[in-house]
Amino acid sequence: MATVEELKLRVRELENELIKCKQRQCSAEDAHNRPKIDKMSAEVVDSNPYSRLMALKRMGIVDDYEKIRTFSVAVVGVGGVGSVTAEMLTRCGIGKLLLFDYDKVELANMNRLFFQPHQAGLSKVEAAEHTLRNINPDVAFETHNYNITTLDNFTHFMDRISHGGLEEGLPVDLVLSCVDNFEARMAINTACNELGQIWMESGVSENAVSGHIQLIIPGETACFACAPPLVVAANIDEKTLKREGVCAASLPTTMGVVAGLLVQNVLKYLLKFGTVSYYLGYNAMQDFFPTMTMKANPQCNDRYCRRQQEEYKKKEAERPKVEAVQEEEEEAIVHEDNEWGIELVSEVTDAELQAASGVVPDLPEGITVAYTIPVEETAKGETVEETEVSLEDLMAQMRKL
Amino acid sequence: MATVEELKLRVRELENELIKCKQRQCSAEDAHNRPKIDKMSAEVVDSNPYSRLMALKRMGIVDDYEKIRTFSVAVVGVGGVGSVTAEMLTRCGIGKLLLFDYDKVELANMNRLFFQPHQAGLSKVEAAEHTLRNINPDVAFETHNYNITTLDNFTHFMDRISHGGLEEGLPVDLVLSCVDNFEARMAINTACNELGQIWMESGVSENAVSGHIQLIIPGETACFACAPPLVVAANIDEKTLKREGVCAASLPTTMGVVAGLLVQNVLKYLLKFGTVSYYLGYNAMQDFFPTMTMKANPQCNDRYCRRQQEEYKKKEAERPKVEAVQEEEEEAIVHEDNEWGIELVSEVTDAELQAASGVVPDLPEGITVAYTIPVEETAKGETVEETEVSLEDLMAQMRKL
Repeated sequence: MATVEELKLRVRELENELIKCKQRQCSAEDAHNRPKIDKMSAEVVDSNPYSRLMALKRMGIVDDYEKIRTFSVAVVGVGGVGSVTAEMLTRCGIGKLLLFDYDKVELANMNRLFFQPHQAGLSKVEAAEHTLRNINPDVAFETHNYNITTLDNFTHFMDRISHGGLEEGLPVDLVLSCVDNFEARMAINTACNELGQIWMESGVSENAVSGHIQLIIPGETACFACAPPLVVAANIDEKTLKREGVCAASLPTTMGVVAGLLVQNVLKYLLKFGTVSYYLGYNAMQDFFPTMTMKANPQCNDRYCRRQQEEYKKKEAERPKVEAVQEEEEEAIVHEDNEWGIELVSEVTDAELQAASGVVPDLPEGITVAYTIPVEETAKGETVEETEVSLEDLMAQMRKL
Repeated sequence: MATVEELKLRVRELENELIKCKQRQCSAEDAHNRPKIDKMSAEVVDSNPYSRLMALKRMGIVDDYEKIRTFSVAVVGVGGVGSVTAEMLTRCGIGKLLLFDYDKVELANMNRLFFQPHQAGLSKVEAAEHTLRNINPDVAFETHNYNITTLDNFTHFMDRISHGGLEEGLPVDLVLSCVDNFEARMAINTACNELGQIWMESGVSENAVSGHIQLIIPGETACFACAPPLVVAANIDEKTLKREGVCAASLPTTMGVVAGLLVQNVLKYLLKFGTVSYYLGYNAMQDFFPTMTMKANPQCNDRYCRRQQEEYKKKEAERPKVEAVQEEEEEAIVHEDNEWGIELVSEVTDAELQAASGVVPDLPEGITVAYTIPVEETAKGETVEETEVSLEDLMAQMRKL
């Protein structure tokens, strides 16, 4: 019977052997690896991988493109959207990427970009890191091959979000949710609310023809628990979606567009150019792209969200008035109501909407709720609003779902 | 604190990973090629690369997804947009792809998706074919490593468009323009007008933050010579764009979005679902997406365009009236005028507009002309409208530009 110490030693040995084995691989890719580049150059030569990015400065788009190297971004979920998101950030020369996923590459993933058939069987984070490091050795990578929703992993996830910055010990600059299920989104939401961590959510519908991205600033905008998550209505019959034993459809087009819109929003947010979108939907059937914002819900179930709202109110009250006016002007663009005149079929029934625990927001035409937040077991029949739920309780409840 | 069971599990995982790593050889990719698949299956198993695509039928989106295998698409330009376009079509299981490009892969291309550093120095079509064949061996590939605008190559290009269908001798189903210059776009336009070949044009602005796609049906919609090509105004100062000795900026995000919108439009067109967009713009700075249609110009300089217009008029006159009404209803959605309320700076001066040889179309807010068609040398000072220019003359003039 091996002791814990013996097993730990064995794990370390194996990890070292594995690293050596990976380094030994005589793949064509590795042999042609370019050396690291210390400073991004704007020089226009074929051998400079950054010339087209540094040109953004000259074009008047970005003040200081090289600042991209100072940021650390966590990508949770390295599937159809997450892998392309990670590749775009890698090619843009982001400082550090933290990748979280517990899935393996399968041939069934080959209808989306990024992974290739020879990677089938490898863990997604491992396969992604190998490809991405080849593409851009200047990026620092940290991968975690686990499910963030289990208790231990969630604790570790929280720790990496708060300490996995470019300088170890500092928090990451942004968390990107590229997961495909409610539980994982809720875990990211819980973590970011507690940490006050700004994040962006992304999603693609099960029928593959609509998607969205959303910027969530704890205390300021609606969090994932404030209101039912939103999607762009895809104009198809709900009944075709929820049958048993049926896999979701997916398209490389929709996922590529959503990843592109997500990373574009990340670049605008980090490098301060253009207008950052709070919510941007994509309906592929009619090519329309609704935008909106949603304020945080004072009755949100998440106590950390409510605490962040208090913090935000305090900060807002302390701000000089002139800034507030500017903000309102900026928001005027974002809030804008589009007159699409397209008739849409809601993906959620009225009964489901009424059963939702969050408030149902006033939605612009073309946006509907993706699904409703299930009423929690412990809260059935009583008013949820005043229930103080601890993080542990929340996590326990989430695992039950 | 890890338990003995957890550590044992980790040891087993690492041992398996190590075995796999050792098994991997130099030509890992090639060795793991999957065999061809005769018939697309909807079976939901990890080893089926088509399950998520065939699910589109069950979801009520596409009537017969497998029809994708009967189509042949030519992609002209395998750069930032074209390579991702080709990859998406490959992963979607298109029947045949014809790739045209004369460029080599450079490290300077690494800020866009698809190509990897170890491919630097290879021709783009060769490198692309190798990667794409690995991803999906069911697709037939035909590559042409040449510049389509020289006379001999143009003749060959015309021949492949008219005979490079899935069944040799039949025309391709669609031509996609993913090139980055006026001359190549004009060559594609000339070829498609003469052949009556439906095509889609795509483009990304030099400042990397706007792009567009456009469906061109010879005789029906405006061709590339009917009117100045359109772009989405990017809200930046024109003066920053046209300085000498400066490379264009580019972003993997914008190019990924444009490729995604393009291939989505291709899928909708070929598989007959949703509303096919005639013109769809993307302005990344404000996240807005204007749409429009443009009718063919009866005074177009291209005589084949004018001939196609006559053909179209005849066909329209012969159509039963009830269909015409349906068409108008459908168009109502596409034509729709969006109220964006965003102030835009034109990228072209009024003087440049007046010097344009094409008519200046009535544009919705947010769309402007990319650049104007230079007034032809031979036509200066006289009325261009009645000049009958032969293909050879046109090509000769184009090479002079």
